[in-house]
Order: sequence, then C-alpha cells, then structure tokens
Amino acid sequence: MSASHDRKLRYAMVGGGRDAFIGAVHRRAMALDGQMELVAGALSSDPDKARASGRDLGLADARNHGRWEDLLADELKRPADERIDFVSIVTPNHVHYPVAKAFAEAGIHVVCDKPLVHTSAQAEELVRTVERTGIVFGVTYNYTGYPMVREARAMVRGGVLGELRKVTVEYNQGWLATHVEAQGNKQAGWRTDPEKSGVAGAIGDIGSHAENLAATVTGLEIEAICADLGSLVPGRRLDDDGNLLLRWRGGVRGVLVASQIAAGFENDLRLRVFGSKGSLEWRQEEPNHLVHAPLDGPRRILTRGSPWLSESSRRACRVPSGHPEAFIEAFANVYLGVAADIRARLAGVRADPIAADYPRVTDGARGVRFIEKTVESAASERKWTPMT
Amino acid sequence: MSASHDRKLRYAMVGGGRDAFIGAVHRRAMALDGQMELVAGALSSDPDKARASGRDLGLADARNHGRWEDLLADELKRPADERIDFVSIVTPNHVHYPVAKAFAEAGIHVVCDKPLVHTSAQAEELVRTVERTGIVFGVTYNYTGYPMVREARAMVRGGVLGELRKVTVEYNQGWLATHVEAQGNKQAGWRTDPEKSGVAGAIGDIGSHAENLAATVTGLEIEAICADLGSLVPGRRLDDDGNLLLRWRGGVRGVLVASQIAAGFENDLRLRVFGSKGSLEWRQEEPNHLVHAPLDGPRRILTRGSPWLSESSRRACRVPSGHPEAFIEAFANVYLGVAADIRARLAGVRADPIAADYPRVTDGARGVRFIEKTVESAASERKWTPMT
Amino acid sequence: MSASHDRKLRYAMVGGGRDAFIGAVHRRAMALDGQMELVAGALSSDPDKARASGRDLGLADARNHGRWEDLLADELKRPADERIDFVSIVTPNHVHYPVAKAFAEAGIHVVCDKPLVHTSAQAEELVRTVERTGIVFGVTYNYTGYPMVREARAMVRGGVLGELRKVTVEYNQGWLATHVEAQGNKQAGWRTDPEKSGVAGAIGDIGSHAENLAATVTGLEIEAICADLGSLVPGRRLDDDGNLLLRWRGGVRGVLVASQIAAGFENDLRLRVFGSKGSLEWRQEEPNHLVHAPLDGPRRILTRGSPWLSESSRRACRVPSGHPEAFIEAFANVYLGVAADIRARLAGVRADPIAADYPRVTDGARGVRFIEKTVESAASERKWTPMT
Amino acid sequence: MSASHDRKLRYAMVGGGRDAFIGAVHRRAMALDGQMELVAGALSSDPDKARASGRDLGLADARNHGRWEDLLADELKRPADERIDFVSIVTPNHVHYPVAKAFAEAGIHVVCDKPLVHTSAQAEELVRTVERTGIVFGVTYNYTGYPMVREARAMVRGGVLGELRKVTVEYNQGWLATHVEAQGNKQAGWRTDPEKSGVAGAIGDIGSHAENLAATVTGLEIEAICADLGSLVPGRRLDDDGNLLLRWRGGVRGVLVASQIAAGFENDLRLRVFGSKGSLEWRQEEPNHLVHAPLDGPRRILTRGSPWLSESSRRACRVPSGHPEAFIEAFANVYLGVAADIRARLAGVRADPIAADYPRVTDGARGVRFIEKTVESAASERKWTPMT
Repeated sequence: MSASHDRKLRYAMVGGGRDAFIGAVHRRAMALDGQMELVAGALSSDPDKARASGRDLGLADARNHGRWEDLLADELKRPADERIDFVSIVTPNHVHYPVAKAFAEAGIHVVCDKPLVHTSAQAEELVRTVERTGIVFGVTYNYTGYPMVREARAMVRGGVLGELRKVTVEYNQGWLATHVEAQGNKQAGWRTDPEKSGVAGAIGDIGSHAENLAATVTGLEIEAICADLGSLVPGRRLDDDGNLLLRWRGGVRGVLVASQIAAGFENDLRLRVFGSKGSLEWRQEEPNHLVHAPLDGPRRILTRGSPWLSESSRRACRVPSGHPEAFIEAFANVYLGVAADIRARLAGVRADPIAADYPRVTDGARGVRFIEKTVESAASERKWTPMT
Repeated sequence: MSASHDRKLRYAMVGGGRDAFIGAVHRRAMALDGQMELVAGALSSDPDKARASGRDLGLADARNHGRWEDLLADELKRPADERIDFVSIVTPNHVHYPVAKAFAEAGIHVVCDKPLVHTSAQAEELVRTVERTGIVFGVTYNYTGYPMVREARAMVRGGVLGELRKVTVEYNQGWLATHVEAQGNKQAGWRTDPEKSGVAGAIGDIGSHAENLAATVTGLEIEAICADLGSLVPGRRLDDDGNLLLRWRGGVRGVLVASQIAAGFENDLRLRVFGSKGSLEWRQEEPNHLVHAPLDGPRRILTRGSPWLSESSRRACRVPSGHPEAFIEAFANVYLGVAADIRARLAGVRADPIAADYPRVTDGARGVRFIEKTVESAASERKWTPMT
Repeated sequence: MSASHDRKLRYAMVGGGRDAFIGAVHRRAMALDGQMELVAGALSSDPDKARASGRDLGLADARNHGRWEDLLADELKRPADERIDFVSIVTPNHVHYPVAKAFAEAGIHVVCDKPLVHTSAQAEELVRTVERTGIVFGVTYNYTGYPMVREARAMVRGGVLGELRKVTVEYNQGWLATHVEAQGNKQAGWRTDPEKSGVAGAIGDIGSHAENLAATVTGLEIEAICADLGSLVPGRRLDDDGNLLLRWRGGVRGVLVASQIAAGFENDLRLRVFGSKGSLEWRQEEPNHLVHAPLDGPRRILTRGSPWLSESSRRACRVPSGHPEAFIEAFANVYLGVAADIRARLAGVRADPIAADYPRVTDGARGVRFIEKTVESAASERKWTPMT
Repeated sequence: MSASHDRKLRYAMVGGGRDAFIGAVHRRAMALDGQMELVAGALSSDPDKARASGRDLGLADARNHGRWEDLLADELKRPADERIDFVSIVTPNHVHYPVAKAFAEAGIHVVCDKPLVHTSAQAEELVRTVERTGIVFGVTYNYTGYPMVREARAMVRGGVLGELRKVTVEYNQGWLATHVEAQGNKQAGWRTDPEKSGVAGAIGDIGSHAENLAATVTGLEIEAICADLGSLVPGRRLDDDGNLLLRWRGGVRGVLVASQIAAGFENDLRLRVFGSKGSLEWRQEEPNHLVHAPLDGPRRILTRGSPWLSESSRRACRVPSGHPEAFIEAFANVYLGVAADIRARLAGVRADPIAADYPRVTDGARGVRFIEKTVESAASERKWTPMT
C-alpha cells in the first residue's frame, strides 16, 4: 500500500450530513490513508442541515452548499487545480440517480453508494453515460475491499477449487426484527419506504451486497432466480426477509438469503463456494480469516496478511496478520481503488489493475437488475425467472 | 438417567453385519447404558455373511439367522421370557418396509432406521399397522436425542422466541463430492442407487434428518415446498445437492439445504429458528452448545448439563457440562426413549413422557412424504408444491 | 476398532455405587463396545449401599459384596473360567492404594482411577508389585484416549513440530468457585478433604490430568517445578487454584495451570505444544479437532477420523469424522487398551502396541510425584524445586 | 463520537519514516477521524531518510527536518496558531527518552510509544517533568482503546465479577520463532538488540502490553513477580519467551505469558479475569467480542456497539455492531483521548473523563518498572521479587 503521492485527491460529498450513518464511514475511509480530502459538499437534502453539517466538517463557506445542483455548478466554475477530483454520493437510494447522472455528464468522476439506482433503465443510462464520458465510476460494494475476499477471488479464479458447483451466500441482520420504523428510527425509516428505497427492502439493502460478493469472488453471473420474499414484521411495507434459489451460469447451483428479521444476528454476511476440489467459506464478522477446505486434506484457516497469500490480497493490507483489520479498512480499499484509477487518468497512464480494484458502474447495474428480477420472481408462480 | 431396571431388554437386529457402518453405532448406542442386550439377529441379506457377523457378536447359533424371516419365525416360537422385546432394523432403505411390516404385524416392537420406507403408501400402511397392533415403533432420527436439541425444543415450545417467523436448516456433507460409488465405496453404493435408496439421494439420506430436526424442535409442519435438486457430480444417478424454499404452516418461512457435495464439510447439520423475540442456533458438530440470541440482550451460549436447562434436556445427559457428549450418546437417548415406552407397556403403566421421548412411526411417515413431495417439486415448473 | 472377540472380559468394580459420579462413566465406557461385562462388585464403602447398588446393576447376590476384601476373597475361590479378568477401582483417592495393592498381589489385573495413590512411597510399592507379578495395571487418565490426543502424540513424536521449545497445559474448571463443599456437594466434599483427597486439591484432581496429558503427548518429563498454589475460596482446606512454571527436560519451558475457581469454565483442559517448526493446540471441550500451525503455512484444523491421520488415531475412532465422539468414547478407549493387553496375556502373545494403548502404573506413579513436588514447591521460597 | 471541532490539532512526528512499521499506523489512527493533521516531522534518525520520508507525506520543506532537535527548535520559534499541538514519538525505544524529555520540558504535549523508556530512573524523571509542566502525556498502549476492553473495565470496576481472585494475561506471537534478525528483518533487528530495545525482548515489547491491559481492566497493581525468561531461539540475545507467576495486590493471583516463539500464533493477546461472581475473557484477535460467564447462568457474548454496553464502551465505537472495528480504530481511540485532553486545555476547561481516556505517563512508568522487575526476578533464585 503505497504511502507516497504528489497530492491528495479532492472530493465533494453529497449526502452524509448530521444524523446520517454511512456518510461518516465514507469520510473515515477516505481519510484513513491520507490520500483524499473533503473540500466541498451538499451534505443533506435539507439546505440548512446541509450547511450546518458542512460547518461541522470544516468546509469553507464558499464550498458548503445547500443543494447538490449548486455544488456541481460551483465546481464547474472553478479552475482545474482547485476543482474536485470526484464526488462521493451517499444519499438515500432515490437520490443516487439524478446526482450521479449530472456529475457524470459533467465529466466528474463519481463514487456512488449501492444499490446504484432504482431501475435498470436508470442503471443502463448511467452505464452509457460512463462509457461515453470515460469517467471513473465506483460503486461502494464495500465488502469487496476485504483482503480475504480478494484472496477468495484469487483462489477461485486461479482454479484452487476446481470446477465450481455451488455458491451460497447469506446476509442476516436482526435490526429490523421489530417495527422500528414506526418508532422514529431514521435508518429504518427510509430503508422500509418504497419511495426512498425502491421496489425492494432487505433484498435491495443487503441482498444486493450478497449478490455482489458472490459474483465478485466467483466471476459467475446469475442465470435464473426463484425468490420468496416476505414482510414478516407486521406493518412493514417492503420485504424484510428474502430466500432465493439460484441458477448461476455454467450449471452452478446456489442459494441466497437476505434477512433483516434474523433476531440476534448483527451483520452476518457469509459466503460459501463449493467446487470439485474443495470449498471456501468467509464471514464478514470475522473478516481476517478465510476457511479453505481442500478435498484431500484438513481445513486451513488462511489469515489476512500471511506471506503465502496472493498479491491482490496482500496489497490490500495495512498491518501484519493478527492485528485485525475491519470494516472501515475494507471500505477504504474500495476508495483506494478508485483513487488509483483517477490518478492513472491524471497521469495519463494505464492503471495498475491490482491497485485499481473496485466495483464499477456495470457491477452496480447488474445489482439493480438482480433486485428487479428478484422482485419479479417473488410475484411469479413460475419457479424460475430468467435474469435476462 | 435412571441406572436401575429389573432386567435388560432383549433385542434382535436385522442388518448391520460385517462392513455395515450404522449397525455398530446402533449396537453401541444400545449397549451404552446397560439396558439392552442383543440376543438374536439376521445381520445381512447374504446368509453366510449374516451368520458370520452374528458369530462375531457372540450370538448363540440358534438365534443367529441367515434370513430375517427365519429370525421372526423363530422368535415367535419362543416363550415370552426369552423372546426379543424389540427388533432393530438397520438395513439399507429398501428392506425397511417388509421387515418392519412383518414384525409389527407379529406384535413385536420395532425400531427402524430412517428414511422409514420408500413410499407414502408403505408408510401409511405401517402407521395403520402400528395403530392397530398398538406396538411401540421408533424411528432413529438420532439427532433428536441430543440434549441441546431437546433444550431448543423446550425453549421454542415454551415461547422463549415469541412467535416463530423463519426456520432454516442445513445439512452439508462432502463425502460424495467425488464419484466414490464408482470406486467401490459400499456406503455410497447403495445410497446413490435408486433401487436401494428410493427416489431420492441426499434429500432422502440427510434432507429427511433436516426436516425432522426442524419439525421436532418447532412443532411446525411444512405447507409447501419449492425444491431444486441436482446431481452435481457427473455420473451420479440420484440427487446429491438439494436446496428448498419452505413455507411452514402458520406463515413461517424457511430454507432447507441438504448437500453431499459440500467438499470439506463433514456432517454439518445446523438449525436456526427465528422468532419475534429472538433466535436459536444449533450445530450437530458442536452438539453440546446451543446459541440463544434474545432481541434485548447479548447472545448466550447454553451448554449441555447446565442446571438452568429444562428437565427434558437435563435428563438426557450422562456426564456434567464440559465433559462433552456426542453422537453415540444422542443415538442412545433415542433407544432409551423406546426402551422406556416398552418398559411401560411391560409394566402396564403409562410411560413418563420425558422418558419415552423418541421419534414415532408418524414422524417417519411424514419424512417419507417430505421426500416424495420434494422430488415432485423438483420436477415441477410451478414454484410451490403443496405438502398435502 | 475390532468388533470380534471370543468372549467378553469379566470385571468387578470397587466403588462407583449410588450417588457416585465417575463409576457410571467407567461402566458405560466398558459397556460401549460390548467387550466387557460387570460380574461382581463392592460398590461402596458402606456395605448396605454397596449391595443396593449392586442390585441396581443386576449383580448376582453371590458376587455383590459389602466389602472389597470379601470380593477379592470370593473371586480367588472361583474357577478361572468364572473369575474376573480385572478389577476396576473407582473409589475416592484414599482407598485406591489398599485395594489396588491387594488385587495386584493376588495377580488380578487392575484398572485404577487417578491420582493413583496418596504418596510416592505407595506408588513405588505398587510399581514394584506390578513388576513382580507381571499383571496389567491401567490408570484412567482418560483424556489420553481421545483420538486427537493420540494424533497429537503421533505428530510430536514424529517430529512434525521440530525441536520442542515450550509446552503449556491448562485445566480450568469453575465448579468450586463457591464453597459448595459446605452445602453438601458430595463430589466437592471428598475432593476438598485432605483425609480423602491427599495433600492436594485442584492440583491432584485435575493438575495431574494436565501433567499426564502433556507428558503423554510430548514424551517429556518435568525437571523442575515452581508452583504457586492458592485456596482462593474462603474456608477451603486444599488448593483450588494452582499456577506452575515448568522446566521440562531438554531445555523445554512450560506453564501448567489447574484451577477449580475459574467461574464459567466447565472442563477446559487445553494443551499447547510449541516447536521449532510449528505448534499444536488441543482442547478437551472440542475434542474432535486438533489445530496444527506450521511455521510456513496456514493453520490446519485436523478432525477426528480423517483418512490422513495416524493409525493410532484412526483406530481409536468409532464413527466417521463430523459425527462427534466425546468423553465416554475416550474413556472407553483407555479400557480397550487395557482389554487388548489382557487378551494378549490370555492368548500368550505380545500385545499389539497400537491396541494396547493406555496409561500404566508408572504414569500413575509419576503423577503422584508431580503432586508431591508441586506441593513442596508451593511451600518453598526457592524458585525451582527439582522433580528428583 | 463527536464529529465536530473548531479545528484539527496539528502534530509533528519523530520517527516513523520509510521502512518503519508502526509510524504509519499512528498516522492512520490520527487521520481516521479527521481531527489531527501532520504538519511537521523528523521522521528518521538518518537525516536524508527523514527528509525523504517527510516529502512522501507532503510535509512542507520548512517543517521537514533531518533531526528532531531541529524540529523542536523550529516549532518553538513559530507563533502559537501555527505551532504543533503535540508531538508523536514513534522511534525505536532507546530514542524515546531524550525526545520525550525535550518536548515535555518545552511544554509541548507528547504522545510516546511504549515501552516508555529504558529505565525507571528515566521514567520517574519524565513523570516529574509532566507533573511540573502540566502537559498532556499519552503512552500508546493501544489495546486499551478497544471498545470491548473498555467494557471489560467498566464491568470489573462496576463489580459485575464480584471480588477478583485471579487475572491471567497472555500475549503469544510466533514471528520470532526463527532467527529472523540474522536475516535482515528490521523490526526483529532492533527489538532483539539490547542497545535499542533495552534489558528485555519479548517481555518489553509485548509483555508490557499484557501488564498494561490487565492493569487497565482491573485497576490492580502487581505486588510480586516470579519470572522465567528464556531465549529459546539459538543465537538470540534477549528473551523471546517469558512466563510469570504474579501476585496482584489484594490477594489476587495471576499468570502472565509473553512469547514471540509461539509458532503459528499471530498477535494473540488475551485476558481472563476471574472473580467470585463470574469471569471475563477477551482476545485481541476477535476484539469485537467479550465473553462474560456469570456463575449463575450461561456464558454471554457481548458485542461491540450493543445498546446495553457502558457509555465508555459505546462512545468508543464508530460503526454499529456486526460491522467489525479493529486495530487501527482502537489505536485511534487512544489518540482521540489525548486530543480530547489537549482540546480541554486549549479551551481552559476540565476534560470529559470518558472522552479523555488514554494511558498516561504514569502507566508508562509502571510498565518500565514491570520490565525491570521481571528481568530482576528472572535472574533471582528466590521465588518472589517484590515490585517495590
């Protein structure tokens, strides 16, 4: 992990003001390695709150905006050596599309939270815009930043498991096991509101992470979905529990579970990949370990930072094995990947692929389609709903 | 666990001869507590092997038979104080029905391995026979004998989890991840042969354990099944990987996974039950623990033998907590349940329900229906196949 | 694990009557594999209780004695084909010596619980008796019967860890964290009473298991001890917490902890062995696993029953990996070792060393010396007390 | 965790240049929350490397020094609104004293890595200097920054465990299991060199962390030490394995282990505290969990961020439970504690004690005495060496 750069990248943030949860995580992730600095923002959809939030963070008044449209207009007026290098969009889901579209059209690099947008039509439009403008566009599927996820990917792609047969991914949370959105929980409020969250609840919020994790590690795409979505807490408007049978391309079977009513579970994202030569298992709550079970020998507990790991995994580490790294560091790795790509553009060179390792707009678009097709399948009496 | 009894119960065994795996487990389970003794047998479908096996086990020649029909005929001729109290049937699946039917019709108590029989028609016929004759008929769903499974059952039935919402059960094994039946593996041979194993492979062999475990703990019955069964190892004739969405009666959702191609997994049966007040998780490979996550406090690791557990759990223990008990002890508990019921019959009293705790013929019949409906669902293009 | 034998071995039990804990474990261990049968006994120091206990277990009146002296006299009068093959002594510690000595002198094979006796003088006398009479004499250091302990031993002895550097063993229990002996707890009563337990409490009851486990696995002997023994529960008469620095022969360092006031710990015996090429860790509460950390690769979780384990470990298994085996099975393995040795004597052949695998009287004598020297060290102001 | 402040605190760093390990961790810890900025430095004892390292980090030339003496002189010339708020000293141990002493004498707040200095005389001199000047002086015993360590402290201090009886702390690493200092490993080089590391190796490097962790959580002080220190890797000049019996004040027993030859162990710092009402266990490699075993109920797994934890623990969190936090976040918490204290001084108010939570110079001095007394004990033939 290189420590030396000519200058910090400048970024603006849209969303992430007072009371927001994930914005501060993004800021810490960007601060961690001293490579990025916040210079502008429109931190809330409420202009007053936006500006108050910007003052909290030390933004200069001239770059602390009440509306994201003003932020964009102001940045476009600034000289290149002052203008932001990229924008980080951390609003509720329904705001992603207009902001991302506008900045992308203006040629400004974008990092956007997931799920990318509400509809595949929007997603495809963003993909086209990115292709046309050539900008860097990252989507913060943050779990892909864990070093041991990268190790799993290197192992699967390198054939360690042989031919893949089955991929199972679960994401269990318990924080929506009661009707907290009726009790003023802000995070629960927008996530369970179809206006803000889109057509899906749990399957959009965390199911899309599960899909992305499985696809990132294996390189597989889903061929068909058989979904059962439920709203198991009385009064809830969107799904809070989803169970899917999957057919991955190439004859690979699978199960995907995303539940937010799993009382007592915190953030239990776990992936299992089964092949003809062995299996892998990874759990987000113990992210520094990866369990590899070869067919012909005992299980092995691979640990982050070990010298026998792949370069892509080792380069994603900051401290030696045994000194755990965790959620924020993984998040930061996604941003470092974006930064490496932006720096390569600035330098006019081809990015180092191990450095420029981050989920792209196409991953985001695939995630949106996954959500749509899951909802379609859940409403269908047919067993299998094809992805395309 | 009472240590005192007037006499040992006498049993005969059908199947379980040389080279068999599970027969020796049954015998050890019956020997463990000194309450049962093997006095007769027809230990193989090969008469010579049957007799050789009986000699290994010290059977008297007169009660060491080459055919189960001879065993039955001989026992019926013996006086009551010499005749077997019950027969234990541990043959491959396809032999269960004729043997069980014949002994039941003769009024001899039966313990039969699972899955009970090949078809629901056979199962219903056995249920009727048992009702008519009034015999004790146990099915060795052995995992129900674990003290912490009984604790889970007591907690769920006692309302500790509130209203149930979701029940997930998995049974992952890896021993069929290669085509071992083509290499002379006897256990794999009959389990992957439709003639001997029935219409199902993994779903019959271990999926039925998963169904039984979930049903035993929760008391729920399945309403509808959506199954995806695969034969993922090339050349295999029966399913080796099954993934099911479940609708349990009462609006409870569920997932059931039974796989024998899960490379690196040994015998990983695990159950999770989610309710409105918390969740439970139990794993067969760490059977002395039960994880209870209440909504309003930290996770608790309940351990076998603790004084605060239910009577049904505590009475199923032989040694104090921390001295682990395991597979054979759980198996023995099922037999102790059968024995308690037989002793009650002998004494002409009503059995103590905590003592006479074992899976019945009706559990076995439900298991057969589960297998049939799963296979039916797997062949259907409709999402849901109702259980009835 | 061979299932075939000419006949069951006949045994008598001294101690282990009603209210006793460990006697029933011994009986179950001996019953498990169908190789031994209880034919006689003197099951309590209280003659009435002894006989009542014998009746519970179905002993014939003629062989159900009120005093062990009567048992011995009676057996010596019986013909060889009826006489017991061995005696199992499961009394409180202070009774071990006279019983063991008398049976050994009479040429009857002995299994005796640990710690063997109260003093090294007694232990040495027993060793001499055993040498003189040539009897089989096993000591139930039961933890040595675990298959993964035998695997650890095979690995260490085979050089997998390179040169040994450090051996750490802990045995933590919490059941004496309160003054239970004052509340009528029978097990606590004699274990905390110097008259019955000897000079040591925790260090005798469980510290001796720890010493034996470490010595069995490594083959090392202790050179010098530096002990700190405490009676941390007010009112207790013997040590309930012991912490020792060890010097093993050959320059190996070590720590031994034995505590019965470790609130919340159940039976947490764990061993760690460190060598120049890697380390091993084993925990009694998860006995089916052994963690091997080689210097040059990831940690490996070895599981009981795996095909790549040593023959001595594999032959100690009854069921395949993933179907856990536990405390009673390990205990049974010690008895099977004794039985194999007795059968070899009966057959006039040399015993198969893998079969006749059990702790000997010399292990018991070393354990007694360990206890004595630990108590001596605890009273000394010098740092190191040599073992010899 | 408050996100709002008038301005970032300015700091200089001494040490931590190219090739250093821990300096980058300190910088990331300080960057994480956006509250501190690096403005000056003398980053190596080699002036050229120092300046090159400073350029890597974007230091202005005028504040990028080749010698720490120049850094100090330069800062003292600057106006208050430009001058550093504190210095962070992350050099090898032997440089700590002169730098810390000089900055402290100049009235500049100090954060110094551990172990604080080489001798108690130096440590006491520093304590006196801090008392006299009134500066803030933090010592980066970073493990005290973990939220679950703070929870453990709150529980122990709040009496949850009743009266303390025993405190055991272990720190096992394996990275010095071979003679790596002879192969050019820089970290190993200075840590095994008495000139740079002081009188102790493992006991100074990690044993002092263990002592600090135990003392922080329990509030106990060591009364007497019985130490066995070894240099188990041939050719090593300082101890690489230390095993200590402890007597804590108030009759509490203990064991402390610090080993760097524990092959296969990464950074396994673990603490167990036993009291009359229960026990606690915490492991650095799974820092988000704390195991509490009450005497009268099942073990409970407390997780970071849970609403039922103490304020001191909850305020040390950045993300919700289940999203793991780790090493760098804990490190950052120590710096946040220092920052809160400095900000209180700047504001002329009394610091919020929950915010200003960090190890003080007196903790550092106690740690130095611990090291000295351990080395003294190791050389003694007497069992107990008193701490005072």
